[in-house]
Amino acid sequence: MTLLVAITGWEVAPWVERFRRLLPDRRVVALGEPYEPDEILYAAAWKHPPGTFAGLPNLRAIFSLGAGVDHLVGDPALPDVPVVRVVDEDLTNRMSEYVVLHCLAHLRQARLYDGLQRERRWWDDRHQPAARDVRVGVMGLGVLGLDAARKLQVMGFDVAGWSRSPKSVEGLPTFAGETGLDAFLARTDILVCLLPLTPDTRGILRESLLTRLARDGRLGGPVLVNAGRGGLQVEADILRCLDAGVLKAATLDVFETEPLPAASPLWGHPAVTVTPHNAAMSAPDAVGAQVADGIFTMESGMPLRHRVDPARGY
Amino acid sequence: MTLLVAITGWEVAPWVERFRRLLPDRRVVALGEPYEPDEILYAAAWKHPPGTFAGLPNLRAIFSLGAGVDHLVGDPALPDVPVVRVVDEDLTNRMSEYVVLHCLAHLRQARLYDGLQRERRWWDDRHQPAARDVRVGVMGLGVLGLDAARKLQVMGFDVAGWSRSPKSVEGLPTFAGETGLDAFLARTDILVCLLPLTPDTRGILRESLLTRLARDGRLGGPVLVNAGRGGLQVEADILRCLDAGVLKAATLDVFETEPLPAASPLWGHPAVTVTPHNAAMSAPDAVGAQVADGIFTMESGMPLRHRVDPARGY
Ligand SMILES: NC(=O)c1ccc[n+]([C@@H]2O[C@H](COP(=O)([O-])OP(=O)(O)OC[C@H]3O[C@@H](n4cnc5c(N)ncnc54)[C@H](OP(=O)(O)O)[C@@H]3O)[C@@H](O)[C@H]2O)c1
Ligand SMILES: NC(=O)c1ccc[n+]([C@@H]2O[C@H](COP(=O)([O-])OP(=O)(O)OC[C@H]3O[C@@H](n4cnc5c(N)ncnc54)[C@H](OP(=O)(O)O)[C@@H]3O)[C@@H](O)[C@H]2O)c1
Repeated sequence: MTLLVAITGWEVAPWVERFRRLLPDRRVVALGEPYEPDEILYAAAWKHPPGTFAGLPNLRAIFSLGAGVDHLVGDPALPDVPVVRVVDEDLTNRMSEYVVLHCLAHLRQARLYDGLQRERRWWDDRHQPAARDVRVGVMGLGVLGLDAARKLQVMGFDVAGWSRSPKSVEGLPTFAGETGLDAFLARTDILVCLLPLTPDTRGILRESLLTRLARDGRLGGPVLVNAGRGGLQVEADILRCLDAGVLKAATLDVFETEPLPAASPLWGHPAVTVTPHNAAMSAPDAVGAQVADGIFTMESGMPLRHRVDPARGY
Repeated sequence: MTLLVAITGWEVAPWVERFRRLLPDRRVVALGEPYEPDEILYAAAWKHPPGTFAGLPNLRAIFSLGAGVDHLVGDPALPDVPVVRVVDEDLTNRMSEYVVLHCLAHLRQARLYDGLQRERRWWDDRHQPAARDVRVGVMGLGVLGLDAARKLQVMGFDVAGWSRSPKSVEGLPTFAGETGLDAFLARTDILVCLLPLTPDTRGILRESLLTRLARDGRLGGPVLVNAGRGGLQVEADILRCLDAGVLKAATLDVFETEPLPAASPLWGHPAVTVTPHNAAMSAPDAVGAQVADGIFTMESGMPLRHRVDPARGY
């Protein structure tokens, strides 16, 4: 009845302590501590060393401690057990805070006005577009993409969405798959990327896509906001598009390498806003409670919620 | 049947031209052009020279070209005719863009992260409050305040409002008048001011009010956002409160003197965000159409909408 906690990059001790509190009648071991392979029934993982979960004969489920599962499904030695991800209202709301903040900041030219303030210059642009004049395209209409799309609509933006499978969402124009991508990009002034990282989506934010964004919009050029995963973007292409005027600006929360290396030209580019992968942190207590809940659900024979399809990759 | 256009501070010619287009069978004169006092039936005004409208025996109504009417009702020689203000959905939406943008920027510490970007420093604060942990207090529950309050709620903030007369608004805690002010301020982490400027509200944002804001909030100190009128604030007090740690930050769109003089310490204060009175510009064509509409309404004997109560001052 043991839970194995396999985390890298985060502090492990608070997670072990949290699970011991939530599951007082189980054994909780962290990677590196001694355990018998056959005692492990469950695993809780964030960026585990690949192969960690092979050779655990009684493993029943793996719980991701974050919303993304690319760190799990990318492991070629992942055993064939249910993989469960975090779906947390608090995390969803925080992602929408981030997306709405940065779309409004581009709409209202926050960085331009910050610069004017530094120069003590009073300049009121009487020709600012309103949100309804600006078309936002949300890539990924999952838990996060749909919530962000709704809140962007409330703020007045002209929103559409793109997903893998066709979707019908009340009041939201949607596009799907490769066949829908061209029309979606052609009506997009601000591209918000909330895709998962999968073999299909890796590197999707590259030059050949960015050049298809709308060039007739009110912002003076298309804008990219990526809060999905760094592996979705080709940073050299983004920089080239910015410098060629194909993109007007970019707000990036995620990067090919994290932390973003100090030498990256993204840090100092005047049209780039860098945030340190903090668009939407999950509150550890809420995540821990969800894992405990998943274990109880399984043991009572009920269907597990928020299962990932490892073949699809998300 | 003449309309008198009395504008200072804005370019006059486009307004005259617009009214000639909208009212082709009327005479439209600008201040400074010759006219007979008794030919003027209507006036359209923005910061008119006080006294302009005295001695016009046939004047029937004065239309403000902006949402605020302090420039009109502050004129001691204002004749006793209906004063009509602009109420425009587009302007309301733009004000809410501004309010939500700046509340989210304070919540998500946008200026801190901008500074970290300049230093190429990757620092993810795992203890950020969510919108629901932050209490926003909206002063003024008129057309603008109510729309902003609703949209702040959609973003997850814990919102309450304050007005002159008691109000019951579904799902929004409200406070009214002097008696409600203490409780309202004590539960406010971000104070958003969308009041009109009247004799009662002039200078309301002074030290004795700011010190009553919540000190137990999640932002590390209360924040002020004023997009009402500059006359509502005492800038010396705001600066003193910032420097004493009574306020954590302020975002100001309006100022005691506009344009904000280059020598003002607000420009360079690290905790102050200055914008050039552009929170919500009315689109001139929409405003012109409303004035024309008001004239037709009057002449068809129907009741005028959006009349101001000069005694109340708004
Ligand atoms: N920056 C941060 O702090 C942070 C925090 C949390 C999460 N995230 C990232 O956000 C991602 C999205 O989270 P979520 O909870 O919204 O995921 P989700 O519910 O699984 O939704 C994923 C969406 O992406 C679409 N999609 C997947 N592959 C696609 C493809 N090849 N082409 C087109 N659309 C595709 C899916 O389409 P269908 O609807 O057709 O299936 C679905 O709409 C996570 O995977 C994670 O990487 C980032
Ligand atoms: N920065 C910009 O770009 C910009 C643009 C447009 C407008 N504005 C400013 O925004 C102001 C508000 O516009 P609005 O259309 O929302 O006005 P409104 O519809 O007339 O509403 C005014 C609100 O303020 C309240 N109020 C007035 N005097 C008060 C007092 N002494 N104590 C407490 N509450 C008081 C009123 O209370 P009751 O509900 O009890 O009457 C009402 O809720 C305008 O007057 C203008 O100055 C600024």
